[in-house]
Amino acid sequence: MRRWNGWGDEGVLLDAPESAVVFIEGKVGPGRPPADASLERALAAVPTPRLSAPAFVDQSPLARLRHSLGESLPDMIAVRAGRLPGYVDGVAWPTSADEVRQALAWAAQAGAAVIPYGGGTSVVGHLDPGGLDRPTLSLDMSRCSALQELDGDGRLAVFGAGAAGPDVEAALRAHGFTLGHFPQSWEYSTLGGWIAARSSGQFSLGYGRIEALFVGGRLETPRGELVLPALPASAAGPDLRQVVLGSEGRLGVITQATVKISPAPQVEDLRGAFFADQGQAVDAARSLAQSGLPLTMVRLSLPAETETSLRLAGGGRAMVALRKYLAWRGVGQGMCLMLYGFCGGRRAARWVMAEAGRVVARAGGVAVGRRPGRQWLRNRFSLPYLRNNLWAMGYAADTLETATPWRAVLPMAQAIEEALAGSLADEGERVHAFTHLSHVYAHGASVYTSYVFRLGQGPEQTLARWRKLKAAASRTIVANGGTISHQHGVGLDHKAYLPAEKGPLGLDLLRAQCAAMDPKGMMNPGKLLD
Amino acid sequence: MRRWNGWGDEGVLLDAPESAVVFIEGKVGPGRPPADASLERALAAVPTPRLSAPAFVDQSPLARLRHSLGESLPDMIAVRAGRLPGYVDGVAWPTSADEVRQALAWAAQAGAAVIPYGGGTSVVGHLDPGGLDRPTLSLDMSRCSALQELDGDGRLAVFGAGAAGPDVEAALRAHGFTLGHFPQSWEYSTLGGWIAARSSGQFSLGYGRIEALFVGGRLETPRGELVLPALPASAAGPDLRQVVLGSEGRLGVITQATVKISPAPQVEDLRGAFFADQGQAVDAARSLAQSGLPLTMVRLSLPAETETSLRLAGGGRAMVALRKYLAWRGVGQGMCLMLYGFCGGRRAARWVMAEAGRVVARAGGVAVGRRPGRQWLRNRFSLPYLRNNLWAMGYAADTLETATPWRAVLPMAQAIEEALAGSLADEGERVHAFTHLSHVYAHGASVYTSYVFRLGQGPEQTLARWRKLKAAASRTIVANGGTISHQHGVGLDHKAYLPAEKGPLGLDLLRAQCAAMDPKGMMNPGKLLD
Repeated sequence: MRRWNGWGDEGVLLDAPESAVVFIEGKVGPGRPPADASLERALAAVPTPRLSAPAFVDQSPLARLRHSLGESLPDMIAVRAGRLPGYVDGVAWPTSADEVRQALAWAAQAGAAVIPYGGGTSVVGHLDPGGLDRPTLSLDMSRCSALQELDGDGRLAVFGAGAAGPDVEAALRAHGFTLGHFPQSWEYSTLGGWIAARSSGQFSLGYGRIEALFVGGRLETPRGELVLPALPASAAGPDLRQVVLGSEGRLGVITQATVKISPAPQVEDLRGAFFADQGQAVDAARSLAQSGLPLTMVRLSLPAETETSLRLAGGGRAMVALRKYLAWRGVGQGMCLMLYGFCGGRRAARWVMAEAGRVVARAGGVAVGRRPGRQWLRNRFSLPYLRNNLWAMGYAADTLETATPWRAVLPMAQAIEEALAGSLADEGERVHAFTHLSHVYAHGASVYTSYVFRLGQGPEQTLARWRKLKAAASRTIVANGGTISHQHGVGLDHKAYLPAEKGPLGLDLLRAQCAAMDPKGMMNPGKLLD
Repeated sequence: MRRWNGWGDEGVLLDAPESAVVFIEGKVGPGRPPADASLERALAAVPTPRLSAPAFVDQSPLARLRHSLGESLPDMIAVRAGRLPGYVDGVAWPTSADEVRQALAWAAQAGAAVIPYGGGTSVVGHLDPGGLDRPTLSLDMSRCSALQELDGDGRLAVFGAGAAGPDVEAALRAHGFTLGHFPQSWEYSTLGGWIAARSSGQFSLGYGRIEALFVGGRLETPRGELVLPALPASAAGPDLRQVVLGSEGRLGVITQATVKISPAPQVEDLRGAFFADQGQAVDAARSLAQSGLPLTMVRLSLPAETETSLRLAGGGRAMVALRKYLAWRGVGQGMCLMLYGFCGGRRAARWVMAEAGRVVARAGGVAVGRRPGRQWLRNRFSLPYLRNNLWAMGYAADTLETATPWRAVLPMAQAIEEALAGSLADEGERVHAFTHLSHVYAHGASVYTSYVFRLGQGPEQTLARWRKLKAAASRTIVANGGTISHQHGVGLDHKAYLPAEKGPLGLDLLRAQCAAMDPKGMMNPGKLLD
């Protein structure tokens, strides 16, 4: 059973090593375990629905509670306190585009807003019905999740948009294929959600961001169905897929997606290398990104994250030996861990990884083999569980991200870490922030920062702290010319920073797109833009 | 000096071998050389301008004639007859975004329409002012063509949007870089035009279509400037670059573009292989496209085009030897020529081409080495000149193109060739049509068909023949689910077929985008959509 108030399955409890607790305590001070609300209290807080709904709408308090939040830190603070900023008034589980159409028609007639719901994993407030002054219907797409067509020779598959990561991979692997899209939320997030929020998976360097995987599809809008034909490429005017990608529920509900698939890889070869300093490491990441090699992933932890990862991994014998070896190679304080790898055929893997190894060595990297890669693969979806552990110990953890041209990558990363580190100084609170480059491109990289701070005396204080941190980091991103989001989307939490990126005319374009599909503004109002 | 009534420089005369003349005569019958209008007669037909313009507008008949057409076959039929469907009333050559803004402001005030002009190479009627009931200003962007910034380490360059292909490459090669964008119109077409028409270059498999190269830029609209920040990737809402890509002048004038650049290649290794039949050949092209190898080009001529190319190349000794060798390898009637290649570093070239060679051999390809590739490289931009030769002999030549998933590629190609071949049967005229796949993707390919027919007794009959041919091919493309254009754009000639591709809601989205930037509809009205 999925947790109602935190990440993941109730049965999964991550074991945080004692050394990790000591490390975090050293960084931000001892935590104060919070007094979380029980499910009973949280359900008791769910108000009477603002509309009387037909039979296909579930108005039970549990369904309404579960569909009134995502996985942002403000969402977590609220649900742990037992009271959300707002509640949807009902949940529908359509099983087809027809049923989506019926639900939209009913909502339009009832004067209700509609929030499309995929896996409920938004970390920027996409699902928060809090600001809405009218009844709201959540459309849970999980019952539109089937593989509808597979053209293996043509490398195309058609899915219901509610298919979650494991659904997609299970259906494709059975035929020898993969989508290759693995965001950290993969266990729950859905194809439709990836499209609506412009998701980027951990292997996007190889398989492409969702923009490259989403070939065509269907969108149910308040004005009818928008059909995006599945074409390999086209010069027939602007690409309307790109209007749907990132639309965050504002245009309608994605019901079906045709995606580009790849053969399931014969090998997943991920390797680690350490660098003595971050300038050298970023140059190495850039060299790999610009090498033209068909790599699947390049991921670079900057010094604070490298140190944090090593400390969280504990201090076993292997770690002691690793540190000794690195010191002997001149790598110590300030070191950076890079993971780089290839997924695909065996022959290509041999050549690509040998060539990549040459690039890494030439850039001063100290190769440490496949062990860090194997470890990362094992834990790739488990980091969000750590947030539950930290919370229980009295800490809040969040992440934020941007992307920027290469020349701005390191200054941006440093400025964000500094902005976060100093943001709670007025309260005498310390913040531990650490960064990696999660995605690299020939012409830039993403900058992904995690941060941990102590919970306040109650939810209000914790939320106030988060607001300060988020504002400081977001202002830093804007001031340094980065995008306000490389992979999480805009939702509520980034909305104030969108005008700086899109400009006034750009916002007018977005508004015109929304108005063209949803003239009455019933689709996820208030998200992305006002 | 550029020709005023045909492709290319006046000094360039292509020599068509006698065997080619015999071949074409055999295919469609003897040509009747046309009576083309002289420049004097064409200039005399230019009417009095419909507006009195300020000093920065050139209203000379020659400038107005030259800016009132592109390179579509209807354009050529009209200009050779000495009378165009319409004429712009003046031409401005802005040297900066500021001057573009001033020109737009003046046009708005004068009630004039504005047609942005890049290299004048549109083949679908983008530049035709014929249908307009109001004065029209052509904005020639050729004086906004400078390299403004170069960040070699970061693989970014900023150009004025009027930079033509040779301007772009000369500026970049001086620093060791290339854009890698080589449409067949490269000698004249411009960066801004490539963006506005969603261009695809011959090496797009390796360097990417213009969509992948256009990182950011500036657009002067009637409502002000739209700035698209240069970001490597973003999840901050829909990608507004994609609204500008393919906008065909309807939103405003692209004044500046930031593009992704690559190191100038150490080697350009293109190789040829023949296949005994087209099914096998298309499977081979698909295998290469799906191989994951970082190839730069895969180009496959289907049987009619392979035969046409060999015949046009003449019948020298090498050709006789080649045919003998192929026959010995079981390749004859119905054979297909594939070119595939890699541009980049020497080490990578060795590995990539060896691996690609294995794929080709496994698929039944008979390798014929680098000679066809070298020949193709030499002639890559000269095919459009052949249209002048054919015209002089009494033949009209045109091309059209689409893209479609793999399963539809061969049926589509055959259906298009058949539709063209039979379209003038009622007049007893034959049509010679031949096809290649110009671009391949893991999930589909483009289908590019050339066709030759005899000129009519006058321009009206020639145009009427073209209309029949174009309609038959376009209807076939739509009926088979292809895009109405893979690389030429929509303009006037594809406009009637856009609704089938975008759907009614899709057209509403496009209209909303245009109205948001150009509420009075002054920008290139009537192109792309009504």
